[in-house]
Amino acid sequence: MPQALHLVARPEGEPKDSDFELRPVEARELVDGEARIAVRYASVDPAMRIWMTEQKSYWPPIGLGEVMRAGGIGEVIESKNPKLPVGAWVGGMTGITEEFITNGKGYRVFDARALPDPTWALHVFGATGFTAYFGLKEIGEPKAGETVVVSAAAGAVGSTVVQLAKAWGCRVIGIAGGAEKCAYVKDELGADEVIDYKNEKVGKRLFETCPDGIDVYFDNVGGEILDSVLKRLKLRARIVVCGGISQYNATGEVRGPANYLSLISARARMEGFVVIDYLHRGDEAIAAMAPLVAAGQLKGKVDVMEGIANFPATLRHLLAGKNFGKQVLKL
Amino acid sequence: MPQALHLVARPEGEPKDSDFELRPVEARELVDGEARIAVRYASVDPAMRIWMTEQKSYWPPIGLGEVMRAGGIGEVIESKNPKLPVGAWVGGMTGITEEFITNGKGYRVFDARALPDPTWALHVFGATGFTAYFGLKEIGEPKAGETVVVSAAAGAVGSTVVQLAKAWGCRVIGIAGGAEKCAYVKDELGADEVIDYKNEKVGKRLFETCPDGIDVYFDNVGGEILDSVLKRLKLRARIVVCGGISQYNATGEVRGPANYLSLISARARMEGFVVIDYLHRGDEAIAAMAPLVAAGQLKGKVDVMEGIANFPATLRHLLAGKNFGKQVLKL
Repeated sequence: MPQALHLVARPEGEPKDSDFELRPVEARELVDGEARIAVRYASVDPAMRIWMTEQKSYWPPIGLGEVMRAGGIGEVIESKNPKLPVGAWVGGMTGITEEFITNGKGYRVFDARALPDPTWALHVFGATGFTAYFGLKEIGEPKAGETVVVSAAAGAVGSTVVQLAKAWGCRVIGIAGGAEKCAYVKDELGADEVIDYKNEKVGKRLFETCPDGIDVYFDNVGGEILDSVLKRLKLRARIVVCGGISQYNATGEVRGPANYLSLISARARMEGFVVIDYLHRGDEAIAAMAPLVAAGQLKGKVDVMEGIANFPATLRHLLAGKNFGKQVLKL
Repeated sequence: MPQALHLVARPEGEPKDSDFELRPVEARELVDGEARIAVRYASVDPAMRIWMTEQKSYWPPIGLGEVMRAGGIGEVIESKNPKLPVGAWVGGMTGITEEFITNGKGYRVFDARALPDPTWALHVFGATGFTAYFGLKEIGEPKAGETVVVSAAAGAVGSTVVQLAKAWGCRVIGIAGGAEKCAYVKDELGADEVIDYKNEKVGKRLFETCPDGIDVYFDNVGGEILDSVLKRLKLRARIVVCGGISQYNATGEVRGPANYLSLISARARMEGFVVIDYLHRGDEAIAAMAPLVAAGQLKGKVDVMEGIANFPATLRHLLAGKNFGKQVLKL
C-alpha cells in the first residue's frame, strides 16, 4: 500500500526521524477530471527546514499532521483526465508521498524524453535552475568581467550559478567544503578559483582571490562566510540573498551579518528573492540554459537517495552539506 | 591664539577627552591665492566615530596627530584670494579648528543672509539635508501612500526624512527616545505615529502602527530596532542603510541583524549609501527643499554646544542620543 510521510513534530535543531510518521495514502476511486500520480523523485531543499518551523515565510508553515511539503516529479498511473494521460510525467508540489490524486491544477506536464534524465526537471530545468538563473540575472545583475563569488558552489543552485556566471563572462570564485567538492567546482564547473571553507580561512582566501573586491555574491549559506564577503565588497556590489543554510538548524538566535555596515561604505545592496515569483518565466530560463547544456557548458549533478522512509536522513545529509549536487529522493 | 583639536588616541568605546589634544594653530602669513577662515560652526556627526577608528570606510581613518575631521562653516577673516573676500561665508571640511588657511579648493562660498541662520548650511541645506533627501529618494524610493519608518527621527537626518516623507504623501512612523523627542516628532514634524524606543517595546509598537507592514525603513541606528523592522517588512520593502549609531561605540563585535533572512520572504533589499556621492547634485536637493521650507513643511532644529574644548563632550552627547536636532559645535 502506498505511503506518505507526515510532519508530526516541529524539529528542534537537526530534524529527527521521530519528527515524521509514515501513514498509508487514502485509497479511493478517481472521479472525472482526476488522475493518480506515482511520485518518482522528490526534490530535497534547504528551504524545507524553514517550512517545518512556525516561522511565516513566503509559504505558510506546514501544519502538524500534514504530508511533508516537497517539489517533485511523477508519472500518471491512472487517469480520468484527458490532459493527464497515463504515462505522462508531471511536475509540481507533490509532497513526500508515493502517490497522490490531482485534478492537474498547479502541475505541469513535461516531456521527460527531451531531458538527459527525468531528474533534470527538478534540477537545471526546474526550480533549482530557475533559482540560479533569475537570482543571478535579476538580483545579482553580473556584467562580463566582474567578480562573482558563490557559496555552496557544489550544491544544486550554487553549481548552476557558477556555470552561468562563467558562461556570462564573469570571473568566478566558488566556496565549497572539502577537497572533492572543491576539485569538482574548479575542474568540472570551471570556477576560476575555489575556496575550501572546511580547510582554509575564507576571509584570507577571499582577500587573495579577489584582490580588487567582490562585485556579486550569491549567498546560499549566511553565517561567517557572508561576514567575510561583506569585508571585501567592491563599490556598488550586489549580494543575492538566496538562503542561509548555515543557520537553518540553529536553535538559538540566527547569527546576523555583523559586517553589514560595509553596505554603507561600499554603497552596496543585499536583496532577497524567492523563485516562485519567477516560475511563470520558466520558459525564458529554459531557453537561455538549453543551449548551454547542449554545448556542455552547463552540467547537472544529482545526489540520489532512495526510499520514502529515508527522507529525514536525506534532509540531514543535505543540511550538513554532505550532498554532492542536487539532492533528490527516489520514491 | 587660535587652537585646533587633534586626535591623539583611537577611542575604545565612548570617546574620552584624553583621546584629543588642543594645540595652537600654526601662525603664518598668507601667500597669494590663500584666505584665512575663522570657523564659526562645526557639524558633529555620528560618522565621526567611524573616522576615528582604523576601519577603512568611504574616507581613510583620521591619522593620529591630525586635526579632527569635521564639516563646518566659517567666515573669511583675511584674504589674498579675490574669490574669497573678507566677510564671505564658506562651507566644507573645515576640521575642528578655530582657524585655517585655504586656497579655496573643496570649499563653497554661500550666502548666509539667504538662510534662516548660517547653521542651515550644515543642516537642511547642507550634507545633513542632502543625506536625508537623496537617501530617501534614491535608495528608499517611497511612493505616496506607502508606510515609511524612520529611526533617530528627532535627529538631524531623521527629522528631515520624516518631513520629506510626509511632504511626499507617505504614512510616517518615527522612532525616537523619550517623551519630549517623541512629542516633537509627532507634533512638530508631523509623523503619523511615533514610537518611544526608551519606554515602549519597538516590535510590539511596529506591529500596532504598521498593521500592513513597512515599505521603507530609513535606518540611522541598526541594532535591535533594525531587527524588529526586519520582522515587519512588506513585500519588496527597501531598507536605507544610512548609519548604525547604536553600534558605533561597541567595543565587541557589532550586532548583525539576526532577522536578515526576512529579506528573502519579503523580496526586500537593504542598501547602503554615502552622501558624498550626491554632493554634486546638492542644488537639486536645495531646489526641492527650499519651497517646503518656505511653506513651513520642513523645519530645522539645531542643538548648539559651544567651545572647541567641548568637542569630545558634544560627540558623546550625540552618540548617546541626547541631542535634539542637528548637533553643531559653535567655535
